[in-house]
Amino acid sequence: MAFEAGELTTLLDGRWAHVRDQVREALEGIDLAPADDLDTESHRAHTLEQLRQLAKTGVPALGFPTAHGGSGDTGGSVVSLEMLPGNLSLMVKSGVQWGLFGGAVVALGTERHHERYLRDIISLELPGCFAMTETGHGSDVQNLRTTATYDPESQEFVVHTPHEAARKEYIGNAARDGRMAVVFAQLITGGESHGVHALLVPIRDQDGDPLPGVEITDCGRKAGLNGVDNGRIVFDQVRVPREALLNRYGDVAPDGTYSSPIASKGKRFFTMLGTLIRGRVSVAGTAGSAAKLALEIALRYGDARRQFGRPGTEDEVVVLDYLAHQRKLLPALAKSFALHFAQEELVSSLHDGSDDERAQRELESRAAGLKAITTWHATSTIQTCREACGGAGYLAENQLAQLKADTDVFTTFEGDNTVLLQLVAKGLLTNYKDQFDDLGTLGMAKFLADQFVGSVIERTATRSLVQRIIDASGKDDILDRGWQLKMFDDRERHVLDGLGRRLRKSNRSNAFEVFNSAQDHVLRAGRVHVDRLVLEAFVAAIERCRDRRTAALLNKVCDLYVLSTIEEDRGWFLEHERISPRRSKAIIEAVNGLCAQLRPHAVDLVAAFNLPRQWLTAPIATGAEADRQQAQQAHDRTLRS
Amino acid sequence: MAFEAGELTTLLDGRWAHVRDQVREALEGIDLAPADDLDTESHRAHTLEQLRQLAKTGVPALGFPTAHGGSGDTGGSVVSLEMLPGNLSLMVKSGVQWGLFGGAVVALGTERHHERYLRDIISLELPGCFAMTETGHGSDVQNLRTTATYDPESQEFVVHTPHEAARKEYIGNAARDGRMAVVFAQLITGGESHGVHALLVPIRDQDGDPLPGVEITDCGRKAGLNGVDNGRIVFDQVRVPREALLNRYGDVAPDGTYSSPIASKGKRFFTMLGTLIRGRVSVAGTAGSAAKLALEIALRYGDARRQFGRPGTEDEVVVLDYLAHQRKLLPALAKSFALHFAQEELVSSLHDGSDDERAQRELESRAAGLKAITTWHATSTIQTCREACGGAGYLAENQLAQLKADTDVFTTFEGDNTVLLQLVAKGLLTNYKDQFDDLGTLGMAKFLADQFVGSVIERTATRSLVQRIIDASGKDDILDRGWQLKMFDDRERHVLDGLGRRLRKSNRSNAFEVFNSAQDHVLRAGRVHVDRLVLEAFVAAIERCRDRRTAALLNKVCDLYVLSTIEEDRGWFLEHERISPRRSKAIIEAVNGLCAQLRPHAVDLVAAFNLPRQWLTAPIATGAEADRQQAQQAHDRTLRS
Repeated sequence: MAFEAGELTTLLDGRWAHVRDQVREALEGIDLAPADDLDTESHRAHTLEQLRQLAKTGVPALGFPTAHGGSGDTGGSVVSLEMLPGNLSLMVKSGVQWGLFGGAVVALGTERHHERYLRDIISLELPGCFAMTETGHGSDVQNLRTTATYDPESQEFVVHTPHEAARKEYIGNAARDGRMAVVFAQLITGGESHGVHALLVPIRDQDGDPLPGVEITDCGRKAGLNGVDNGRIVFDQVRVPREALLNRYGDVAPDGTYSSPIASKGKRFFTMLGTLIRGRVSVAGTAGSAAKLALEIALRYGDARRQFGRPGTEDEVVVLDYLAHQRKLLPALAKSFALHFAQEELVSSLHDGSDDERAQRELESRAAGLKAITTWHATSTIQTCREACGGAGYLAENQLAQLKADTDVFTTFEGDNTVLLQLVAKGLLTNYKDQFDDLGTLGMAKFLADQFVGSVIERTATRSLVQRIIDASGKDDILDRGWQLKMFDDRERHVLDGLGRRLRKSNRSNAFEVFNSAQDHVLRAGRVHVDRLVLEAFVAAIERCRDRRTAALLNKVCDLYVLSTIEEDRGWFLEHERISPRRSKAIIEAVNGLCAQLRPHAVDLVAAFNLPRQWLTAPIATGAEADRQQAQQAHDRTLRS
Repeated sequence: MAFEAGELTTLLDGRWAHVRDQVREALEGIDLAPADDLDTESHRAHTLEQLRQLAKTGVPALGFPTAHGGSGDTGGSVVSLEMLPGNLSLMVKSGVQWGLFGGAVVALGTERHHERYLRDIISLELPGCFAMTETGHGSDVQNLRTTATYDPESQEFVVHTPHEAARKEYIGNAARDGRMAVVFAQLITGGESHGVHALLVPIRDQDGDPLPGVEITDCGRKAGLNGVDNGRIVFDQVRVPREALLNRYGDVAPDGTYSSPIASKGKRFFTMLGTLIRGRVSVAGTAGSAAKLALEIALRYGDARRQFGRPGTEDEVVVLDYLAHQRKLLPALAKSFALHFAQEELVSSLHDGSDDERAQRELESRAAGLKAITTWHATSTIQTCREACGGAGYLAENQLAQLKADTDVFTTFEGDNTVLLQLVAKGLLTNYKDQFDDLGTLGMAKFLADQFVGSVIERTATRSLVQRIIDASGKDDILDRGWQLKMFDDRERHVLDGLGRRLRKSNRSNAFEVFNSAQDHVLRAGRVHVDRLVLEAFVAAIERCRDRRTAALLNKVCDLYVLSTIEEDRGWFLEHERISPRRSKAIIEAVNGLCAQLRPHAVDLVAAFNLPRQWLTAPIATGAEADRQQAQQAHDRTLRS
């Protein structure tokens, strides 16, 4: 089962192959190695310097409008961040500067802001912050407590933090480098609140000192990402001019009159939020890359490392030949492939955009769901890789420690995964929306329930391919793709139907209790929905593969993804009599069999992702272990002869 | 359902309550706070200084013989390490100095070594290392490649590292502080190898410089535990006197004649290893404590933190009131109780010792199994706690980052968990030993198979209580303890029977393949065996509880432990038709119900462990969040009025 590694990389590089190549080349010229054993201040300085170098490569300009020095390539900007898994402090600081801060100015601002700030943002002349989260409100950002009160006399907004829970919290670039912040606050004019809006607020002068009324404290040391200077910001009646309001979705006239193209306060807020999902998509992409890098390290080491003699021989067994070791790493590798293709579909949808509101809601839902599933995948995969490398995996030089520490927050920032999956589920439950109008507050955008009225299973291009495969399938065989697709489909429908039935029992007085007692069911709904989307993306990608042998190998990888997913959730499939006990055991055996079949290709498969080689520095993954094994074997032979 | 917190703490403190109190008191007088944001060298210096302070408290002397300044309290010494979860660099460095290094001198040395070294070891005058692991051999320590060749002319041993894979690796205390090492090496005399033995080898002079022939390098930065100076040691024909051999289980006469009270090389080696299990037991205990500390932080925060408005009210919901949040934390809390009682039983067996070889093997198996299950529990629980605290959980000040980073290596040091569970399984499979004689090399002590011929389910004191409960049970109810015990029992028997049948098919030529293809089955056998032991320990502890209401609450905690364990493994129970689909769903609902019932007691339950208060410093767990919520509510009221 040989395959074309080049063909596979081409397929994986996909639509943004040119951007991936651009980053690979750009990185060859500069040293962006992560910091090693620096105190926090030095690590931050080091990362800022690297950010400056990155700015010079032109890569950060990808996502900005061409009129202001950018390339207008939204998808490319997301993909470029995916290429930085080896230095996640740098990636996150890039994300803060160009994705969140710059992205908010682009998406929520208007020409006056673009003209004035974008070039300086791209060049890093103007380092900035994205000040949304508050100490008291992280997931529920609709209820932020910072206020921006319009004063018609001076034609200024007064930005204010009313109490400690309202201070801006975990704000990247705030503790050290940021000069300006996009501050999200309740906009008040004429005594009336119009909901959360964003304003540009200068926070430091040219010397780097906080401006009057701005109190900045340091979040201090974190589990990881210590090259990023997270801080807290408290505003004491800070005044900014009327023009500081990023006024694309809501504006205040000099006399204080409020106007907006969107009448509903809730809809307006979620529309604003919706324009900012690029950050969420980037986190998913980078989490996926970090998992791939970890897998490459663990697989290369597992392919060289030997432990315990093999009975009847003088050799020791290569650890990746153990079933237990394969089971740790290969299903995770298969899932990495699946998520990679799903991510590319997501980036494409984001890039192409749509005027259709339903399509936009669906994009937001996919971004939320894929972010949750991919970041959890990264956390568990990197953990598993660390353990699979034993003590060597614990040493900083072998990279897994940093990957783990840096990605750990991905599951809760840019949207807490548990909240995001509920948002996904809610989007799917619009059929039942009349029954639970009052549940919008449970971390799930009520707006979505009001607006997104679609069938549960949407009909996309991919979907028609999937339907063809399902229709063509006559075989009731666990390796039959039609059967597999049907299993994922059916599970999603059943979970949603059941959830709908449960939630219909709610009314005004018991809404919280009914919803809360079904919360595990809600989370399951979100999860199985994403599982289906991911599988369909994988199937569509194999369909695009032009090389027969490569496609054959990918089909095995896809089988492993499907069957290990079913195995993990076989409690549900058995409980709902979707598979028999006998079939359940057969699935476990099939996963073992697929692990054995893919084991010889494991290193080639992970290498096909072709992450920039600069990021692979772990001695255990770059020959040290193989060299030692050779030296030991040579010595053993001398002793025997 | 009120309960007696004091009664519960008494039960939890158990047999070593006096030691727990001794440590609680000792810690009140000294500052052992972990380092914050120090570079590696400063962190190590800081930890060494704390180790010196700890030495002065007398606590480290607990485990040493009374004749040499100790208290002769083996169990107490293990429990005392459990009390240091707030500074795990300190705990591990203590474990290296007094547990591994000192423990090896006690267990493998004889009077001449005790007399000469123990007082200096206890006082930290002589900082030492435990140099077993090599770069090339971590799990398979029987095949270490360092040699100690006896030279009868000079009556010395020549200790030598033949190639890079044989260098000593990850050795605690080696990079900076250690003066002497217990070095494990293949003992060769008269041209014949007698297997691995331990020798005392000086590695540094009084000035801290490496001695001639000793090359020490630094393992550098690690994911955590950076207060511990791990290093690599290479020996170039280093000579030590004949008396340096720790000669309890094997000695070399001046003329080079080898003698040992144990004839079999394998048995001798595993007997030596067996005396060293205290380290493994300590790791399990400390991992358990770390999980409790993490849970205390997350539960206290979850009990104060609010997010998202509650429909129909002006309040926001306390996050621990969400089912999803309860499900993250409460089953883990229940398991922490279960493991706590199992750990105490293990420590008791270790402390009491036994001349019976079978009891010794069983103790080793329990230590291996409990170490694996508890350290994995710690890793997943601390991860979950971090996520449950969101961004706050990522900040160093809230302790979870450090707990996570420091405990991460616990799953692979002092025995890799995957290897340990196989060892457990093998101990249980002695009924089948004739069928797979040749499999000893697979990370599983062949010796155990040869020696430990017992029934699969041993009959201990606890066991008779369990049998009484099972016999008395007439109810086929998921909340009936007899039914629960039967489920765990039956699962273990079935898994072992099936595994035995599979392995009987092996012969000399296919041994590796047969064993390897069943490796997931082997791991499951180890796991379900430990699950049963843990449940039985929990049941026995409730039996000891003198307060009726406390016992009633503990029974609920035990129900949650049992049912969440079955829920997690319901794939197996359904696959083997041990539970019906309907019952499986009922179990999920019962877990939800138990979470709701235990939620009001969650903080009191975790507080009952009464870890030294010095270790609870996280602002989110010590009032900061509650204060903010109060201030916000007061402000909200002002706005409304």
